[in-house]
Amino acid sequence: MWGGRYAQGPAAIMEAINASIGFDRKLYRQDIAASKAHCAMLVQQKIIAAKDGAAIAKGLDVILAEIDGGRFEFSTALEDIHMNVEARLAERIGEAAGRLHTARSRNDQVATDFRLWVRDALDRSEVQLQALQAALIARAEEYADTVMPGFTHLQTAQPVTFGHHLLAYVEMFGRDRSRLADCRQRMNENPLGAAALAGTPYAIDRHMTAKALAFDRPMENSLDAVSDRDFALEFMSAAAICGVHLSRLAEEIVLWCSAPFRFVALSDAFTTGSSIMPQKRNPDAAELVRAKSGRLFGTLMSLLTVMKGLPLTYSKDMQEDKEPTFEAAETLELALAAMTGMVLDLTADAKRMREVAGADYSTATDLADWLVRELGLPFRKAHHVTGKLVSLAAERKVPLTDLPLAQMQQVEPGITKAVFKALTVEASVNARRSYGGTAPANVRSAVGRARKRFLRG
Amino acid sequence: MWGGRYAQGPAAIMEAINASIGFDRKLYRQDIAASKAHCAMLVQQKIIAAKDGAAIAKGLDVILAEIDGGRFEFSTALEDIHMNVEARLAERIGEAAGRLHTARSRNDQVATDFRLWVRDALDRSEVQLQALQAALIARAEEYADTVMPGFTHLQTAQPVTFGHHLLAYVEMFGRDRSRLADCRQRMNENPLGAAALAGTPYAIDRHMTAKALAFDRPMENSLDAVSDRDFALEFMSAAAICGVHLSRLAEEIVLWCSAPFRFVALSDAFTTGSSIMPQKRNPDAAELVRAKSGRLFGTLMSLLTVMKGLPLTYSKDMQEDKEPTFEAAETLELALAAMTGMVLDLTADAKRMREVAGADYSTATDLADWLVRELGLPFRKAHHVTGKLVSLAAERKVPLTDLPLAQMQQVEPGITKAVFKALTVEASVNARRSYGGTAPANVRSAVGRARKRFLRG
Amino acid sequence: MWGGRYAQGPAAIMEAINASIGFDRKLYRQDIAASKAHCAMLVQQKIIAAKDGAAIAKGLDVILAEIDGGRFEFSTALEDIHMNVEARLAERIGEAAGRLHTARSRNDQVATDFRLWVRDALDRSEVQLQALQAALIARAEEYADTVMPGFTHLQTAQPVTFGHHLLAYVEMFGRDRSRLADCRQRMNENPLGAAALAGTPYAIDRHMTAKALAFDRPMENSLDAVSDRDFALEFMSAAAICGVHLSRLAEEIVLWCSAPFRFVALSDAFTTGSSIMPQKRNPDAAELVRAKSGRLFGTLMSLLTVMKGLPLTYSKDMQEDKEPTFEAAETLELALAAMTGMVLDLTADAKRMREVAGADYSTATDLADWLVRELGLPFRKAHHVTGKLVSLAAERKVPLTDLPLAQMQQVEPGITKAVFKALTVEASVNARRSYGGTAPANVRSAVGRARKRFLRG
Amino acid sequence: MWGGRYAQGPAAIMEAINASIGFDRKLYRQDIAASKAHCAMLVQQKIIAAKDGAAIAKGLDVILAEIDGGRFEFSTALEDIHMNVEARLAERIGEAAGRLHTARSRNDQVATDFRLWVRDALDRSEVQLQALQAALIARAEEYADTVMPGFTHLQTAQPVTFGHHLLAYVEMFGRDRSRLADCRQRMNENPLGAAALAGTPYAIDRHMTAKALAFDRPMENSLDAVSDRDFALEFMSAAAICGVHLSRLAEEIVLWCSAPFRFVALSDAFTTGSSIMPQKRNPDAAELVRAKSGRLFGTLMSLLTVMKGLPLTYSKDMQEDKEPTFEAAETLELALAAMTGMVLDLTADAKRMREVAGADYSTATDLADWLVRELGLPFRKAHHVTGKLVSLAAERKVPLTDLPLAQMQQVEPGITKAVFKALTVEASVNARRSYGGTAPANVRSAVGRARKRFLRG
Repeated sequence: MWGGRYAQGPAAIMEAINASIGFDRKLYRQDIAASKAHCAMLVQQKIIAAKDGAAIAKGLDVILAEIDGGRFEFSTALEDIHMNVEARLAERIGEAAGRLHTARSRNDQVATDFRLWVRDALDRSEVQLQALQAALIARAEEYADTVMPGFTHLQTAQPVTFGHHLLAYVEMFGRDRSRLADCRQRMNENPLGAAALAGTPYAIDRHMTAKALAFDRPMENSLDAVSDRDFALEFMSAAAICGVHLSRLAEEIVLWCSAPFRFVALSDAFTTGSSIMPQKRNPDAAELVRAKSGRLFGTLMSLLTVMKGLPLTYSKDMQEDKEPTFEAAETLELALAAMTGMVLDLTADAKRMREVAGADYSTATDLADWLVRELGLPFRKAHHVTGKLVSLAAERKVPLTDLPLAQMQQVEPGITKAVFKALTVEASVNARRSYGGTAPANVRSAVGRARKRFLRG
Repeated sequence: MWGGRYAQGPAAIMEAINASIGFDRKLYRQDIAASKAHCAMLVQQKIIAAKDGAAIAKGLDVILAEIDGGRFEFSTALEDIHMNVEARLAERIGEAAGRLHTARSRNDQVATDFRLWVRDALDRSEVQLQALQAALIARAEEYADTVMPGFTHLQTAQPVTFGHHLLAYVEMFGRDRSRLADCRQRMNENPLGAAALAGTPYAIDRHMTAKALAFDRPMENSLDAVSDRDFALEFMSAAAICGVHLSRLAEEIVLWCSAPFRFVALSDAFTTGSSIMPQKRNPDAAELVRAKSGRLFGTLMSLLTVMKGLPLTYSKDMQEDKEPTFEAAETLELALAAMTGMVLDLTADAKRMREVAGADYSTATDLADWLVRELGLPFRKAHHVTGKLVSLAAERKVPLTDLPLAQMQQVEPGITKAVFKALTVEASVNARRSYGGTAPANVRSAVGRARKRFLRG
Repeated sequence: MWGGRYAQGPAAIMEAINASIGFDRKLYRQDIAASKAHCAMLVQQKIIAAKDGAAIAKGLDVILAEIDGGRFEFSTALEDIHMNVEARLAERIGEAAGRLHTARSRNDQVATDFRLWVRDALDRSEVQLQALQAALIARAEEYADTVMPGFTHLQTAQPVTFGHHLLAYVEMFGRDRSRLADCRQRMNENPLGAAALAGTPYAIDRHMTAKALAFDRPMENSLDAVSDRDFALEFMSAAAICGVHLSRLAEEIVLWCSAPFRFVALSDAFTTGSSIMPQKRNPDAAELVRAKSGRLFGTLMSLLTVMKGLPLTYSKDMQEDKEPTFEAAETLELALAAMTGMVLDLTADAKRMREVAGADYSTATDLADWLVRELGLPFRKAHHVTGKLVSLAAERKVPLTDLPLAQMQQVEPGITKAVFKALTVEASVNARRSYGGTAPANVRSAVGRARKRFLRG
Repeated sequence: MWGGRYAQGPAAIMEAINASIGFDRKLYRQDIAASKAHCAMLVQQKIIAAKDGAAIAKGLDVILAEIDGGRFEFSTALEDIHMNVEARLAERIGEAAGRLHTARSRNDQVATDFRLWVRDALDRSEVQLQALQAALIARAEEYADTVMPGFTHLQTAQPVTFGHHLLAYVEMFGRDRSRLADCRQRMNENPLGAAALAGTPYAIDRHMTAKALAFDRPMENSLDAVSDRDFALEFMSAAAICGVHLSRLAEEIVLWCSAPFRFVALSDAFTTGSSIMPQKRNPDAAELVRAKSGRLFGTLMSLLTVMKGLPLTYSKDMQEDKEPTFEAAETLELALAAMTGMVLDLTADAKRMREVAGADYSTATDLADWLVRELGLPFRKAHHVTGKLVSLAAERKVPLTDLPLAQMQQVEPGITKAVFKALTVEASVNARRSYGGTAPANVRSAVGRARKRFLRG
């Protein structure tokens, strides 16, 4: 009647769907830290005796060591991490263990544990993003002068430098860091003390537990404290946006490594080969980073759906918050580490990049700009004249620099031979010195600013 | 530089992101079945010697038994299930093992294995959906006469029967089964023999392997065979829609169990209590089923994103197909089992349902219909008259049946005392005998039809 | 207090959020058709007089002509298409109009209208998909012999033919058609007659209205009839999967048009140029088709979320079904039309494709296969030998065909000069004659089969 | 061949998919403001003549007035808002119009326009969220003493006050405001001057245009400036999370208005009635707000998908950024306005809420807390004793306050008659004075703090 593996009947099904210890055991450090903070507060507020408090604290330390050391037996019958820890505490210290849960509930306990876990995840990603920026900045400096084609629509548009290109990602990951930092600041409030949902009649001190757990303040409203999962949603949103950035760079690496491009090469460390085609270097890590964005979008969608339309306060639906959040965090960390590795690993083929950058009349805009600046043509007119000149060159299958001056002058009599200087790839990139532009000099100063802004000096 | 747990450097990161054995080991049965089919075909086509084929087949059987028995050592260094099995085969039977991979590639191998796994998942869900329908039909028959309020906008609209309400879900889950069946039929094609992407120069017989693996035919195009993941997307779409149905019924169970409703009760088997409030029966299983829809939407979104914009043929991104699909299947199976359990477990409080069904002028529509049928009023006019009568009754705070006939006649002179018979809850439901309507007699015949349509007699 | 444009107060807000006439006017044809079918049935069942029925039918025809002709004044105060039509009918034919709504409700009316609309959308997409397949098949035949590099990981793997590549998409769009057809068949049931939710006491004939509206049968359960939006969800799922296929082909077109690839060119009709860079052909249409997959995924997620956890029966939430569905249909139709245009428009550069197909030791697998077939080496060993030979060639920077036989024999003494014949790009594709393989002869027969399977002869 | 309405051939399809003027006309104010800032800067930097600059500025003002006044003819042939404005400018002022586009490109122009539009949307939502908070705070103060049942799992858990419940939402919307503010600060950077992608050779002053457009600074990297759509994604993420909050409150309003609850009533202004059932008040606005969360999730998923894997810099895919963003903004504004209206409109039924709050042994926790505080029992033991007492009361079908003292003392001899004082609903809420707890005194001080924190005094 139950189908397949649930043939055992209702008890087995209920346990299978209800027990969370399979995944919430990840919260053990946070759970024990929060219990210790709660216990110390109960003692200070004289809600429990100092002796009992000391026994509890010591017992919790032992349990932490047991779990850390892999010597703890998790029990599915005890459902979750909270009951697993409390039951073990009772085994070790007896009745005093029963005093720990005074003035709290599993509702504020899990809200506290999970919030602490997400805060740790935010901190881990922050460190990783900084490492990725450091890698990008270092490579950008190395390639400050390396010319490559700048694409729009994946069509060659204008030459840029590879260093400049890499710095674009430094900006993106900088915004990601900033989003994580905002999220951390917003979520760093203490739900502990909200109890089941309504607060408690005990004279607890929520500011004290807040301080002990490095929260900035207690949450203002007890109902909100046990119902809120914004911090997880916001973390996952930020992770999804970061996933977009990672997928864009990953896509570029895949393209750059492809046979028709050959702009960069990755070493064996980040590719898989084929013993049959030794020249083949499949950019597996880049492909996987690109794909991981799917997981980041999916987990966000998952939790948004779970929370949609839930009446206050705690509903069991909210137990479905953890697995997607854990998965998002793990996915993000893996993708950031792999991307940092690839950025440090890749080697650019400057010659090939230069070759493509110079093709396809990529300096046509420079010609138009020259006409505006030197001859005073309105931009739209200069644009039109350039179009004619490029057409001429294309008919003759020569680059703009090989178009005879006389022929140029037939289209626009004011053109002088000075124009040719503006039409090289190097002249083009060097000319783009407007703030934020691609000129190598700009890239170098941008590298300096990026170090100050993102790497603390 | 790598941040956190990737401090070990590139090799560790690459292994962490690249190896799939952690999850694709779930494919071991399918992998071995496909290898055996391939091997038998190679022998028949004289591509490998019968002796080698026999050694391979026997070796694969032994490996299957080892994995089934938990005696197989999976190796992350060997990356995936295919290489784990092949390496073990080489250990056992030596050089002949090297002949198995003739005329195939990991690309068609994984496409075959995964397709077989999804087909099995479809079959498991089909069985479960049928069990859920059986449970609903049985309860519908039991409650064919039980009156409850029919809601629109969660406002009492008209009385219906609880049996009729449960049969609405039989229709939904029937469509789900039909979707899974369509998906199964569409996806039941053999990718094996596409090799890496282009087919193979060996004289293989793809119809033979198709038959051996119970596929209906070989896939038509080798590039499509290794690039296609439609079957997983379609399965996940069907699972997401089924998740909508499950979430709707789960929401209703949560509402029905709530204090203000109290329409149904669940036993201890599907609720969690509170030792402090013994009357409390938290419908945890229903809440979790409701929430699981989030996971089903999220995993679908995840794989849609992965596949978006992937050029042909195989890209490593596609390795990200398995975890979301496994997760969707597991989530669906768990939710179906739990829902079936709840449907069998719940007890309706017919008295409470009847009480709410009769309140709030729920038979006002019956009054309007009486005016149309008996007095020949146009519906819109009857509607208007009914509005006046209900207002009168509401002012007096009495039900329609307690409104004096004389007063009714002041509004509409044609009304006779026969009208009162039409205004009871029982009359209302009994009158709704149009095809598909809620009358108990209809419900009983609908139960009979449902048994024939869905439970095969 | 209301912020911004809602400063006018509650009435304006309520009207803004509640009225649907702004979008549901798209249903006018379906609404009038359903009303005519309902009216004819009421007459036949003698629920209304034949004379009234005739007046109603005539009035509805006039209104249809008015709307078709742009002469109908839609009123927001009348909220939706149903009330707009009914109010106009009352203006034209007086009291008889009030009899049309007998034995139905807006709940079954909108369910019927919307279902008819989605059915029409399914039919439009079916026609378009067939046109796209026809275009692909025609081009596949044209390019049956044109060699191009087959990629895995966007790395050159083995040579394939462009015709074969295009046929892979014929399979994908074939599955899309099949999904739409299944959806159509499953959803082609008549909700009309479910009335508000419970059925009706009138002796209606739902089979008659079903037949008139070309539905296969009445829906079985009245509660389900007014609550079900599966048909929209399933349509949107199928559209999302089709969007994946479109995005993959669009991505390939963008890549193929890029400077480093230059495999295909699109004409002015499907690109935008730049008057300044006349050689530039931005593949805007391909980029937009690729991006439209986002809209298709988003609208699906949107409606899944709306339906999640909705208790039966009709809730106003369900009014949010239409805009995403309309948007999905419009997006799909636009993308299919644009893709068909591009497929017909594109020109392949066979020379450039051949050049890339022959590079990068793309026939190494053919060498391994030769060693297996001719010398009887186990595949894994042949694989190993090939690796050595390719390494030798790569060191010397020559293709495999330029490696001296003597040097080959140092690695594997059994090799004869016959091997060289197997190593050309043409030999490679011609050899892949296994069912579904890329050999030109296969492509030609596959084209024939595709015409039969998809274009009806 | 094109299917349906695209029968006209390629030109019609390309125009249909490519032209954006149908939606990007919404950017006209931003486009003109940005052009004026750019023009003033060109004049100051002597890149164009002052006379030309003056003509351009004046011409743009006229065009703004034309569009504002509905006298502007938008042309699809001119594709987008930028070309529509520029073409009109040329009509009015002649050749000088051609100088406006100097040192910029449509790529940085649209990035600037769209960013300005999103900034305006953020500002509108901020005002609306504050208005919603003001409404909630006012109602919270009004209902500071009104007792209602606090639910977990939609089961009665402990009594709370309605004021406290409303303040939970003030916290949620406060976080939403804070997220929007962070988004605004992060995105308030100037892309103008990035030109096509690489910067420009003209001596432009990006700080000047930044200042004129109230941006905090120029964006650092030109490639990032034209490729970045983080600001839209972040806005949509914040909108989606806000949508979760709105859907939760909307769900509660629907529940509270339902027949079995009857906790609150909405007036005619926010419900739709039924002329046939005058007592019926369908909470349409609440249902629609609940459903709108789907749109907010869907539009976010849509744009995340569009941006996934896009190589730098501008791709036409990014034109698909606007419609989802416009839709998200409009949806959010409508939902916020409707919710504010409902919060101001609703009337609580204090008597009914009190009745449900007092049922179901909702003060059992107070009994346990009394045992801990007064008798010194460990919490777990007190919990156990309470369970027994509630069971006793439940057997006798009496509330806890009607359980004889003697019987209580059989379970726990230490209990005195003082316990009864702790067991009333009023005592329960008054006791919960811990910071953030539900006691009316707390609610009043929380209202004061909320005014200071969110309404600026």
